[in-house]
Amino acid sequence: MPKVVDHEARRQQLAQAVWSITAHRGLDAVSLRAVAAEAGVSMGTVQHYFGNKEQLIQQSGRYMIELANSMANDSRQNSAEPADPRTVIEAVVHQTLPLDEAQRVGSAVWLAFVARAAVDPELAKLIRESWVGLHELIAGQLRTAQRESKVSARIDVDHEAATIVAVTDGLMSHLLVGHYTVDSAKAVVEEHLDRIFSVRAWKEHF
Amino acid sequence: MPKVVDHEARRQQLAQAVWSITAHRGLDAVSLRAVAAEAGVSMGTVQHYFGNKEQLIQQSGRYMIELANSMANDSRQNSAEPADPRTVIEAVVHQTLPLDEAQRVGSAVWLAFVARAAVDPELAKLIRESWVGLHELIAGQLRTAQRESKVSARIDVDHEAATIVAVTDGLMSHLLVGHYTVDSAKAVVEEHLDRIFSVRAWKEHF
Repeated sequence: MPKVVDHEARRQQLAQAVWSITAHRGLDAVSLRAVAAEAGVSMGTVQHYFGNKEQLIQQSGRYMIELANSMANDSRQNSAEPADPRTVIEAVVHQTLPLDEAQRVGSAVWLAFVARAAVDPELAKLIRESWVGLHELIAGQLRTAQRESKVSARIDVDHEAATIVAVTDGLMSHLLVGHYTVDSAKAVVEEHLDRIFSVRAWKEHF
Repeated sequence: MPKVVDHEARRQQLAQAVWSITAHRGLDAVSLRAVAAEAGVSMGTVQHYFGNKEQLIQQSGRYMIELANSMANDSRQNSAEPADPRTVIEAVVHQTLPLDEAQRVGSAVWLAFVARAAVDPELAKLIRESWVGLHELIAGQLRTAQRESKVSARIDVDHEAATIVAVTDGLMSHLLVGHYTVDSAKAVVEEHLDRIFSVRAWKEHF
């Protein structure tokens, strides 16, 4: 019987080798040779699946974004419905930040891909799609909160969502580089959401 | 007469070659060979000044941060005194964002170094110093604004400064990857500062 190779599993294994190298040594340490060594396969195998280094980086970026999106969907489906908008937003922001070691790997890889996307149009497209998804999720929760009178009907939902996404991405860098502790980064998020969801802001307008 | 080499000028020339490669092809394209080719010198010369690739990246990161800090100081000294706090904060944030092609190069290099700093403790130290400087500059301006009754005396200056720095770093990524146009990123900054400096927020507390 011919050997059956699960090509999809093999691609994911190689993508994970890229993430591991990136998180621990940086994206500039990724090469066909380094990935082959990390995954315990031949360079020929890596080349067979990904062709060259650019393909390897783009495809492993695509896998990471798909994985992140499917994890976000799972956690939404598993949460008690109807969820409180502020709770959902806070959970999504926390999920995006390097608050523990496992998330730290994901964030380090994400940030390396974002930096790479500044010079890689294909990767940039994937990353933009992910940001648009995050923006829409947060804006949707803010609209729900408005209908439930949990935030002022006068806030500019798109502006607030844009600011929350920007704060999240900024804090990701600040945490990865050790500018903040986990607790101080969480406090920045909490105070920011306090302001948006404050009862005073709501009262002030009616 | 022996040839006089300006070592400092040569180091800066090589650092600029690193920036140029990073901005156009990514930090993973930086190598002793690529920098030698970009600067039009021998690999031996690059090695003589920087030893290895890690040194090259760290030192060119250090030069960029020093240059950014000295530009920030110059622009503050050249501005009319006493400057309006909001104007100063907005100028500093704009200076940090890739709003034109020249700043785009600087931002792309900065973001690549931030991503690298997640796995490079020496580079991380430099980047943290720069963020602390930016935070203190903004917090100082907010305190001045409080004394001048331009913002509420009740705002948490450190929280607001932390949020402004996070928004700035997040928007830098969003601009570099094409998620926002220059105008929409500026609008996010403006609305965010509007909220902090709003007269209503001031009136509300007194």
